[in-house]
Order: sequence, then C-alpha cells, then structure tokens
Amino acid sequence: MKYEFNTERKYDIIAIGRACIDLNAVEYNRPMEDTMTFSKYVGGSPANIAIGGSKLGLKAGFIGKLSDDQHGRFIEQYMRGVGIDTSNMVIDKEGHKTGLAFTEIKSPEECSILMYREDVADLYLKPSEVHEDYIKQSKILLVSGTALSKSPSREAVLKAVNLAKKNDVKVIFELDYRPYTWESAEATSVYYSLVAKQADVVIGTRDEFDVMENRTEGQNENTVNNLFKHSPELIVIKHGVDGSYAYTKSGQMFRGQAYLTKVLKTFGAGDSYASAFLYALISGEEIETALKYGSASAAIVVSKHSSSEAMPTVEEIEQLISRESEKATI
Amino acid sequence: MKYEFNTERKYDIIAIGRACIDLNAVEYNRPMEDTMTFSKYVGGSPANIAIGGSKLGLKAGFIGKLSDDQHGRFIEQYMRGVGIDTSNMVIDKEGHKTGLAFTEIKSPEECSILMYREDVADLYLKPSEVHEDYIKQSKILLVSGTALSKSPSREAVLKAVNLAKKNDVKVIFELDYRPYTWESAEATSVYYSLVAKQADVVIGTRDEFDVMENRTEGQNENTVNNLFKHSPELIVIKHGVDGSYAYTKSGQMFRGQAYLTKVLKTFGAGDSYASAFLYALISGEEIETALKYGSASAAIVVSKHSSSEAMPTVEEIEQLISRESEKATI
Amino acid sequence: MKYEFNTERKYDIIAIGRACIDLNAVEYNRPMEDTMTFSKYVGGSPANIAIGGSKLGLKAGFIGKLSDDQHGRFIEQYMRGVGIDTSNMVIDKEGHKTGLAFTEIKSPEECSILMYREDVADLYLKPSEVHEDYIKQSKILLVSGTALSKSPSREAVLKAVNLAKKNDVKVIFELDYRPYTWESAEATSVYYSLVAKQADVVIGTRDEFDVMENRTEGQNENTVNNLFKHSPELIVIKHGVDGSYAYTKSGQMFRGQAYLTKVLKTFGAGDSYASAFLYALISGEEIETALKYGSASAAIVVSKHSSSEAMPTVEEIEQLISRESEKATI
Amino acid sequence: MKYEFNTERKYDIIAIGRACIDLNAVEYNRPMEDTMTFSKYVGGSPANIAIGGSKLGLKAGFIGKLSDDQHGRFIEQYMRGVGIDTSNMVIDKEGHKTGLAFTEIKSPEECSILMYREDVADLYLKPSEVHEDYIKQSKILLVSGTALSKSPSREAVLKAVNLAKKNDVKVIFELDYRPYTWESAEATSVYYSLVAKQADVVIGTRDEFDVMENRTEGQNENTVNNLFKHSPELIVIKHGVDGSYAYTKSGQMFRGQAYLTKVLKTFGAGDSYASAFLYALISGEEIETALKYGSASAAIVVSKHSSSEAMPTVEEIEQLISRESEKATI
Repeated sequence: MKYEFNTERKYDIIAIGRACIDLNAVEYNRPMEDTMTFSKYVGGSPANIAIGGSKLGLKAGFIGKLSDDQHGRFIEQYMRGVGIDTSNMVIDKEGHKTGLAFTEIKSPEECSILMYREDVADLYLKPSEVHEDYIKQSKILLVSGTALSKSPSREAVLKAVNLAKKNDVKVIFELDYRPYTWESAEATSVYYSLVAKQADVVIGTRDEFDVMENRTEGQNENTVNNLFKHSPELIVIKHGVDGSYAYTKSGQMFRGQAYLTKVLKTFGAGDSYASAFLYALISGEEIETALKYGSASAAIVVSKHSSSEAMPTVEEIEQLISRESEKATI
Repeated sequence: MKYEFNTERKYDIIAIGRACIDLNAVEYNRPMEDTMTFSKYVGGSPANIAIGGSKLGLKAGFIGKLSDDQHGRFIEQYMRGVGIDTSNMVIDKEGHKTGLAFTEIKSPEECSILMYREDVADLYLKPSEVHEDYIKQSKILLVSGTALSKSPSREAVLKAVNLAKKNDVKVIFELDYRPYTWESAEATSVYYSLVAKQADVVIGTRDEFDVMENRTEGQNENTVNNLFKHSPELIVIKHGVDGSYAYTKSGQMFRGQAYLTKVLKTFGAGDSYASAFLYALISGEEIETALKYGSASAAIVVSKHSSSEAMPTVEEIEQLISRESEKATI
Repeated sequence: MKYEFNTERKYDIIAIGRACIDLNAVEYNRPMEDTMTFSKYVGGSPANIAIGGSKLGLKAGFIGKLSDDQHGRFIEQYMRGVGIDTSNMVIDKEGHKTGLAFTEIKSPEECSILMYREDVADLYLKPSEVHEDYIKQSKILLVSGTALSKSPSREAVLKAVNLAKKNDVKVIFELDYRPYTWESAEATSVYYSLVAKQADVVIGTRDEFDVMENRTEGQNENTVNNLFKHSPELIVIKHGVDGSYAYTKSGQMFRGQAYLTKVLKTFGAGDSYASAFLYALISGEEIETALKYGSASAAIVVSKHSSSEAMPTVEEIEQLISRESEKATI
Repeated sequence: MKYEFNTERKYDIIAIGRACIDLNAVEYNRPMEDTMTFSKYVGGSPANIAIGGSKLGLKAGFIGKLSDDQHGRFIEQYMRGVGIDTSNMVIDKEGHKTGLAFTEIKSPEECSILMYREDVADLYLKPSEVHEDYIKQSKILLVSGTALSKSPSREAVLKAVNLAKKNDVKVIFELDYRPYTWESAEATSVYYSLVAKQADVVIGTRDEFDVMENRTEGQNENTVNNLFKHSPELIVIKHGVDGSYAYTKSGQMFRGQAYLTKVLKTFGAGDSYASAFLYALISGEEIETALKYGSASAAIVVSKHSSSEAMPTVEEIEQLISRESEKATI
C-alpha cells in the first residue's frame, strides 16, 4: 500500500523545531568524566531528519530559531551546505543560546546525554515567525514533539500545524519525547494528544505513545483505534529490536524487522529511521518498503559516531537491505 | 429552533476558570482616586455565569483554584451559599493570591477596571486537578477564554474540553477576552481558535471574535463559515447596543435586540447575558427566546452595582421581556 | 542626652521605600470573610513615617516608585496633600501594581494582614532613580528594611545609603521586617546586618533584631555590642507592652514605657512610633523625651482605624504624655 | 615591603565562587564555526586561582556549587587531584548545570568566549552552605566578583566576607568582571564597591575598577584614595602590556612590568597572575617580587592552550623572571 502526497510542491519536506549542537565524545567506551575531547555536529531531531532527507535527495526546508553566535552560524552553514533551504531559520535577538547535547558512550548499551536546554534559542521561535507562504510550498510539515514543550515555540508549532492543514500539507508528527522543559506529564499528554489528533502520520516508539497517553504499558491496538477517530491515516509504532509496526486507517498492519548490525551507540536511530521512512513514502514506495528503509538507515547510523554526519545515502540503505534479504533467504 | 442537551445528568452546567474578587467603588461617578470605599463581591466571568445560572434555577458546579486565605474562603462560601457545588474548587498551596478587580465608574460610559492578575491562584489550576468523573456528570462544560491565557490553567482547560467531548458534554466557549497575562496576539489567536473549533457553542462580542482571528473588522459571515467547518453548532456574536446574532450550523440566523435601560455601569453585561441565554437553552426554549433572556438579564445587571449579587431571577427577566414586548407593540 | 543633626538642610527627613494602599475593614471585630466593605488609605512603613513626620511639622521628602494607575496617583496626591515633597517618586512604566494590605481585625489581639506584594511597583525602584543631589539636601535618610527584600529596590537602597554616608546625611534604619518576598532567612540576615552596620540609628522590635541576627531569643546587650563596633550611635529596641530601650554608643541606656490605651488594632504602631521619635530627636529633645513621643504616638494610632490618616499632631502627643505623667505621679 | 598574614592556619587560601568547564578549540587560529573539536578543562577564575596556587605549593580549599552530572564530577575530581580540599564543594540538587566557556582563538589578538551561564550551578550556592568553621581555618578568603552577580550566590559571598572579617581571615577581592547575569551597571557598581570596601587586598584591571566605579577612564589615584578610606591595605591595578601597579595604604606605589612572550591566546592571564602574586605574598616575598611572580605566571599561561592545566610551577616562574632580568641588564 502506498501513501499519497500533493505532488505539485516546491519542497518535499519542511521540518520545524530545534537545530542544536551535539558534542560527541572522541574517546568513548568510558564515562564522560574521562572524555577530554568532544567533536561538534549539528543535532536535534527535526534537524537530523531534514539533513537525512536532504542527503537522500529530498528537497528540504527548515523553520527554526538560531542563537546569534558561532554555534548558531555553524548550524545554518552546515544545513545550507547539505542542501537545506534555511531562509526560514530566524536569528534570535534576545541572547538565547544554542541547545547542547554532550554524549556519553560507556558501552553500546550504556549511552547517555548531558543536555543543555535551559532557555535555548529553538524554544523561542514565535508564532509570528511561522509563515503560511512558506509552509504551503511543501508536501510535508514535519513536527517534532519537543518543540511543543514550551511557549512560544509551542504556539509557533500549533500555528504551523493549522496552516499545514489549511493548505493541504501533510502533517507528520515525530513524537521525539525528551524529558526536559516539560512542566508535567499531564501537560505533555495534553499537547501530544492535541497534535497527534490533527496529524496525518504519527511516528514514535511505544514508550513515546505511552507518554502521549499519560500511561504505562499501553497497547498498540487501543492507541491506533483512538487516533484513527481523528485525522491520522498512518501510524508507526517502534518497538526497538522487536521491529516496528505501521497501521493504516483502512485497517492494514505491516511489520518491519530491525536490522541487527554492529552498534557503537544508540543516538540518532529514531531520526535516521524517520528520514529514510519518509523518503521512501514520498518516493512512492510501498509502506512495507518504507519500513525497511527506516530500519536500514537506523542500523547504519547507530554503527557510526555522529547522528547528522552519519546519515546514509540511498545506495548504502539499499545495499544493507539487499544484504539482509539474502541472509534471510539462506 | 431548539438546541438539544443530554438530559440524564446531575449538573446542568459546570463552569471552569477564575473565581475572583470585585472591589466596586461605593462612591461612583468620579475617578477612582476619589473613591475611598470599596464593596467586595465575587467576580470573574465563569463564576458570575455559574452564580447567575444557579440563581435562575440551574444545577451548577465549578472547577477552579482558590487562594488559601480570607478571599479564597469568602468566594467558596458565597458560591456554596447560592447553591453551586464547590467540591471541585481546589485550594492553592503555593501562596498564590485571589485575582482582584477594582472597578472605576466615572460615568455609565466611562468605566474601567484596575486588575490584579499577577500570578493569581486561578491560573494555577493543574490538569491533574480536572477530573473526568466530575465533568461527565454535566450537560454543559462552560469554558471562559481567560483561563487559556497561561499555563498550567491552559492545559487544565484543554484537558477539560477533551474530557467533555469524550463524554458527550456540550462545550460552551465564552470568549471572555481580557488583555492580561496573554503573551502575544498570535498566541491568543492560536488557543482561542483551538478551543472554538472544538466547542459546540461559541459566544462572544464581535471584538472578541476579532481577537480569535487575530484581525480587525472581521465579518460575522466569514467567522461562522470557518467555525462551522469544525465542531460548533451554534455561534452567538454580540454587537453591543446593536443587539446580538445567533447562527446555527444548519444555516439559520436569529437576531436579538438589546434592551435599553438605565445604565449604571457596563461590567457584568456579558456574564449575565451568558447565564440567562444558557438557562433558556437548557430549559428547552427556542433560540429566539434565549436571545431575549440574555439581553434582559444583561440590561438588569448593568443597572445595578455588582455583577454577581445583581444576577436576576427568572421572574425579573420575564417581567422585563414582557414590558419591552408591550412597548414594542404599542 | 541629645542627638545632633546637620542643621543646614532643606529637608528634615527623606524616606525611601514603599508607599502602598491599605484596605481597612469597615466592619471589624469579625473575620475578613464577613467584611464586605474596605476603606482605602495610604500605607507602607516609610510612607507612614513620612506622613506622620510631616503632620508633626517635619519637612519630608520621599524616594519611591508608584504604579501608573489610579492607586499610584492617589498615593502621590495624598502624600503631596500632607506636605511631602514627591518630586522623587517615580512612575513605573513596566506595568507593576501598587502593593495592597487588606487588614483583618477579629479583635484587638487578633489582627492580621492579607498582603498583595507580588511584583509590586515599589520593589522596582532602580539605583539609577536614586539621586545624590536630592539625598544630600536632607538631615536624615530613613530606610525601611522591606525595601531590601528584592532587586532592584535592594540596590537602590544600598546606593542611597552610600550617598547618605558620603554626604553626612544620618541614616536611620527602621527594620520593618515583613516575611514576604525575602528569599531566605540567611539572605535577610545578610542584608539587614549590612545596612544596620552602616546606619547611624537603628530602630526595631526585639523580634526584628532577631531576624537581623538570624537567631531566636537574642539579648539586647549582645545586639548593641556588635552593632556599636560599626557605624551606629543610637539603637532603639522595642519590647511591645514592656516598653522600649534606647542604647547609645557612649554606653547609656534609656527606657521608655508603653502607654496603655484603648486598642482597636495593632497596625501602624511601629510607624507612628518612629515618626514621633524622630520628630523629637530632630527637634532637639532629649532621648528620654523622644521615647515618650514615640510611645504616645503609637498609643494614639492603635486606637484609631487607619495608620496614615490617624497620625497625631504634636498637641495630641503632648496631651497624652502629660495625662500619663499625671496618672504616674498620683 | 611585605604583607603580613595570620600564620597559624590550616589553609593558605580558600577561594569561593565558580568552578566551570572550558571547552578550548583544538583547531585554532580560525573562527569557531570552523573548529570541529574541543578540549575540556576546568575553568572559572577562582577555580583557576586555587589550581594555580595549589600547583605552586599553597594549601588551598574551595567553596562552591557543582552540577550533579558528569561535568560536576569531573571538576571535583580534577581539583581534588591537584591537591585542593573539595569538602566544601556542594552538589546542586535542583538540576542546575555547570557553566561552559567555549573559547575561540582567531589570532592571539582576537580571542573571544562563547559563554553558557544561564542558571548555572555555581550561582546557586546558598548562604547556608557557607560555614564559619571552614573559613576561619584559612589565611586568605579569595572572592571573585562574578560570584556577586546573582542571588543566592551573591548573599553566600557577602556572608563569607562577613565571616572572614570576623575571624581575621584576609579578604582578597579579584574583581573578575564578566558582563553576564548582572542586572545593570549600577547594580554591579553597588556590589563591587560594597565588597571592595570590606576587602584587605583588591586586584583588577583598570577597566574592572572602572566597572566598580560605574565610570570610564578612571584614575588610579582617585580609585586608591577612595578605597583606602575603608578596609583595603593593598590595591593592585593592572594595565595590560603597560604593566601593573601596587598601592599600599601607607602611601607606597610599586610598578611591575609585563613580560612579553609568545602569545597563543589571552585567556587565563588574570587568574595565573593572581595565583602567583598571592603565592609570593603568602611566602613572605616583597611586593615588588610578588608583582614579578604575577607577570611571569601570566606570561607562561598565555603561551599555552589551557588556563588551568597550564598553571606553572615555581621553578618555571623563577626561570622566566631570571631570564628576563638578564635581558634587562644586558
């Protein structure tokens, strides 16, 4: 089964939300206290998805807010360099800084992130900085959940969703839950539900859907039944190594397996999944194929050091899929 | 034309939002600088509507947050005294104060309010303090727009609206726009639109609908056409002395005239209008009749000193309507 | 023993700090919940002292910040009306409100105050709004402790104390401790100690000196020994109905008795005490006489309804002193 | 001329204030946008001075607040590793992060710092976390000005200064002005003046003394005349490449020349100066010699990559001084 997009649009995808800096441990397999050098990369879920999509050949744009300093300028230059339209990335004039994520890789199983998210520039995107003229040029508006965690970014995203729906732009909601800056579990649930109900496609891990429902051990069946009463037409629920499930409003269910490769760290898996999955959908692939693209892209990124730089090409993804298919048929 | 409600419910109406203190000038027709004495009344749009409704015989409840002091206790006692269920009025434990409104009546045409709304208790109602078991016992959930102006009250109201819709409780949205605590005109528009689209009935002045649309000089026709694409079934737009208009999704339009009486001050007109209009609707009256009830109730309250204490009885309303009808037919 | 002031100055006293609104229960001897009417007066310790001093004939000025609304204008008009120079009372342009104190008089022994002190205008006085040219025209700078409770008012007062010392203006520190807006007991102690050490005269209750020392059950002897190592030359410690004690750096101690009169409420006792005590000192009276003035003025104010309006004249004070002296000699 | 310290104390120096992380550009002589790798060092003026002093053989302690994460633990481990007593470094339990300083070295003359100082842990040190029992064990309390920039750290430092003076611990005030988190130039001046007047030794650049005086182009003579009316006995004013001046209360003035070496970057010059200058004073050297120690230490640190790791040994300092003396005598 395929998923249809508006074809006559300048952009395949416009992402909205945070674009930050990852500072990845150069010396890893140790506690961060013993890491003395860090490498700088662009990070942040929607930025990574835009970068991943752009590398795969999608025409991507970005709506976000950047600090007025060296880190903000680096992000803009890097994203422009990989082909993303940055004309709607606004420079913050109130002194807010770029968000930072120091990554700690003790072992492939023990990864953690030390976040600097206090009053960061991306959360100060204002609704007046979101423009209908821009959004209506895209097939897809990609919304990441973290941009809902605080005002005024929250209202900027709610406005963007409104404009997307008004202009027949598909809203893809990547739950991307991060336990920072949210006021309460109840408030998180209120906004996640609000946007999920208005989205066309919702993508997240089972844990993230539980956050949306403010519960534990939720069941996919209940989740999709509730959401399909509203706008969503396609819902992807990821279960880690157990693979992912795609549900359609028409009642179909597809399962995608996880590809097991050498894992360096777990960061970036979700973003690379989303970018390749959406690339395949937009390219007119079947949902089953799109699930494979997502899994393959995630498998490649977790074997490498960064999240953004490591985003694979179509060729790399297809090679991995074909290699895995051969294994499966032996 | 009549409007149908779920009849098997314990409460006719549950209002959510602020319950505050009005301090009304005892010596009026002068600047507040020359007023040396103030009378204390319960105030706040949803509290006034609940009080007005209760006086008209509706079974009313209230969801809100009260300061843990003499003003908070006065409000609870007064509202309980007029027959409102106050079991879901929570006591604030973080030191927030009751909102205050000092009224200045220079002349019937020059009224102003000096507001104390900084960190007031009512805006600290949390989503966890809103309970499905309570809301589902009512025919109506009355939401006033000011409760959307700040977190966590904003999320508490969004949750309440969600629960109302889930349990077939009609959502009445009284726009009640107050230019305090809102972050920006754009943010105001985002939340007003969000709730208006989910409401069953929307009531406000033309100016308030303009705030919702973040524009000036909006036209009723456009406003109702946009909202009728979503949940609303009935929209009431008030034009001051020019009367009010009720629009139904089925395409009907009714006009209610304003009753011109002796005006002492303009405060309380909207709240008394809403309580009597809703009373008539719930009582099974035609929409045309409900419009008359609203106008009559407003006319009575603006001729008196307070907003809450002055809420009329059914008898007073019907006497005024009949008096005005006779005039009209002469 | 007398206390000497610089005689060649335009003002006897310039007070710095808060000028607010008292809303006093018209119906009293009951809980505030049952009070339905409130009378408006100017309030706030340094404002009361300036008003009291002005009524006694002192030439007074005031440095403070007023809300840009009816309450702010009322305060300025009232203070100007009683003869105070208000040229250095700045109008707040950032929307801060006037502080409010609703008084509850359950009985003469059970008085309480419901305070509105959240982000009030007086605490937003900035150091740049304190001018050396003004302060150096006065014999006395009266500082009240509450103005130290928050930035930027805190820094404005520290600057004013600096300028007073530089220009040989006596610094009178009225401890005036109010448990609002202070961050911690330790921080309170830090700033109270800092200013007390730089002051020439320190006045407060025993409890307030304990707050300054961040301890309980402090002894006057220790308190004065510590302070006399620094600038203070005269320290007055009040012990309620047990009277007050004045200590001089030269080692003298004077005791003033409390005059027992009909008490309506306890508010305003400290401010009226300070204004009359300072009036007597400035007028060249002996310290023993000044203690009597303070006690008499306090006794008069606690028998009346307000704190500012009730400030007595010299004649009233002297009549009470002479009446009490006769009683004592009978 | 020598400067005397209390000799019977466990610690030579206890520093109070910030201990942070420097992230120094590995690839330098370019804009930070082009720097892809950063090295991690302990930073922050008082931490650097304590580290520098400890490397020179002083017995040092530190009072500060650390984030409860990998960065906080790294700082504590590093400082303990160089011999500093860290028993009074408190772990923050409210989620505040370690301050960060990303350094950009475009050229030796064009260095800048990208600071992360928003709600950092060091500014949350509370007065209750400053203990008399600890401070009284030291010869010196070193206070750095930045710790005064925000509450509650501000009050913690004011308390520490109080306790130092009470216990005959010399207060050394390193102005260390950083234009972050301060509310206003006036407020900065208020607190800098307050502590400078209470200090025994004040050290800063001419620009920093101008900040203290809230003026531009101040003159050393006026500065020292004003401060010598209060506690200070020794004042060091640094004029960059023009050398530094030491003034004593007794009226002496000493000039120290700057040693011109190969400069990699300008960071760390002030901290290395202070640590070596204080080391010399405590070791009983003449003030002239102490000025040489300061200059030599600064010259060594600016030629190296870090501020803390690069702190020299006594031998390195003495070699440079003797090398420079020989040059001068040729």
